[in-house]
Amino acid sequence: MALPTSVRIVEVGPRDGLQNEATVVPLATKVALIEALADAGLKTVESGSFVSPKWVPQMADTAEVLAAVKRWPGVAYPVLVPNLKGLEAARAAKVDEIAVFGAASESFSQKNINCSIAESLERFKPVVDAALADGLRVRGYVSCVLGCPYEGDVAPAAVARVSKALFDMGCYEISLGDTIGVGTPLKARAMLEAVAAVVPIERLAVHFHDTWGQALANILACLELGVAVVDSAVAGLGGCPYAKGATGNVATEDVVYMLDGMGIATGVDLLKLAAAGRLITAAIGKAPASKVAQVLAKREAA
Amino acid sequence: MALPTSVRIVEVGPRDGLQNEATVVPLATKVALIEALADAGLKTVESGSFVSPKWVPQMADTAEVLAAVKRWPGVAYPVLVPNLKGLEAARAAKVDEIAVFGAASESFSQKNINCSIAESLERFKPVVDAALADGLRVRGYVSCVLGCPYEGDVAPAAVARVSKALFDMGCYEISLGDTIGVGTPLKARAMLEAVAAVVPIERLAVHFHDTWGQALANILACLELGVAVVDSAVAGLGGCPYAKGATGNVATEDVVYMLDGMGIATGVDLLKLAAAGRLITAAIGKAPASKVAQVLAKREAA
Repeated sequence: MALPTSVRIVEVGPRDGLQNEATVVPLATKVALIEALADAGLKTVESGSFVSPKWVPQMADTAEVLAAVKRWPGVAYPVLVPNLKGLEAARAAKVDEIAVFGAASESFSQKNINCSIAESLERFKPVVDAALADGLRVRGYVSCVLGCPYEGDVAPAAVARVSKALFDMGCYEISLGDTIGVGTPLKARAMLEAVAAVVPIERLAVHFHDTWGQALANILACLELGVAVVDSAVAGLGGCPYAKGATGNVATEDVVYMLDGMGIATGVDLLKLAAAGRLITAAIGKAPASKVAQVLAKREAA
Repeated sequence: MALPTSVRIVEVGPRDGLQNEATVVPLATKVALIEALADAGLKTVESGSFVSPKWVPQMADTAEVLAAVKRWPGVAYPVLVPNLKGLEAARAAKVDEIAVFGAASESFSQKNINCSIAESLERFKPVVDAALADGLRVRGYVSCVLGCPYEGDVAPAAVARVSKALFDMGCYEISLGDTIGVGTPLKARAMLEAVAAVVPIERLAVHFHDTWGQALANILACLELGVAVVDSAVAGLGGCPYAKGATGNVATEDVVYMLDGMGIATGVDLLKLAAAGRLITAAIGKAPASKVAQVLAKREAA
């Protein structure tokens, strides 16, 4: 056991969360959400994506969102960028961090981004090079680290391979995503150990979806190996396109409650965070997919 | 880390779960639920309670339920028994196991059963003596092991004290209950360690409510100390009278999914279990409070 004393939470609700929500969220609401999250103490708030609006209509106004958000000193507002055109847009929006993404499963890579894993890495190389040359930080996402909707189990060695490739390319951090939320603690730990053998563990983040309710247990299992960066989405925003109607990202409220209770510092104010969650769930007409948020909402109402 | 290779799940849905559900469930549905749970492979199915129907109306037909249930060899159908009159009823119903209950918090004991912890132990003594003399097994529940709705934090030493008293009285197993579901992994572990110092850990069970979404993470933390008995309720039945509308017991489906994924044997068939959950949630008009059950239900519907 080597629990970290503090954890950095990467809030992915405004991007990974919202892009999987069907209700289109107005610009002003996105801006209010991002500002509320920074105000709650989050130091990284993923704020959008410069992908084709044809594929991800919810993210079509990322440039306008970034232009309108009042930025806090010390807070990063990264955006997802698939290619050089996206990088250009990110530069114009004056972000200091971008993210690129690969898969640990060949079938998922083909179906999600229409190319093999090797081809996707080749395509990202010039994007990462140009971003680094411009002084931007680059984060790498790896999807399907504990299972693939087409292939089932995914070998830890495959996750390690693509993680190392993205790290060697210059990504300062690799986020390991259980895209379909099927993982359990020992599998999560075995996968993490395989990756940590080729990328320093302090450069790794875990990104669990709560589709099968396992996210917090998996996070705990990974914290025990020393991981200190956790991705999550306020109110458990998002869903899983491979299990219609199912839960998406683990809720930031639930993660913060657990870490608070374990004496692990996050810098996040749980009540302000829950209020940010209510702001966005009211806008999309859903209840928060967070038990902590549900209890707190009942207290507010009482 | 000393993970068990197998875990015995104590299914508490038909008692601890249903007693906190407002909708009155017909006798035939209770019987069908208990039979479906045994058919799914559960070896202990808590089936009712001989307390005053004035206090727990949902359990008023426990004698009829036990008379009607087709009992499987090797399956225990324990009932909650507060006094000698309850024991008489349990004997008449031909159960081979009863459960008594104490609290780790003085205020909770006073408000829940109108007496001090010491008085409650004195009252249970003749019940346990008589049950043991009759060859019945007796299980002891301890509530509020990680927090009390009136007192807040509860000292691990207080949990250890009442656990030891129940164990010394003759209870073969002590179930440690986070009644209000506020615990987090390190606190759960510290509490368990304090109890395991005075009661052998193989005589301890953990009983987490998922009010704040922490139950699976807490179970994992306790499994790592070697606990091999876990209480749970199919479909996450129940609620928390101290947080209206909040989630109750951790869902058996979520526990079984985690243990299956960890290679820890339970003997439970997840699909049959989920079907048992749908049977009872349809009867009470609620969705199952289990992410695993929700994903499986969507698959069934697809």
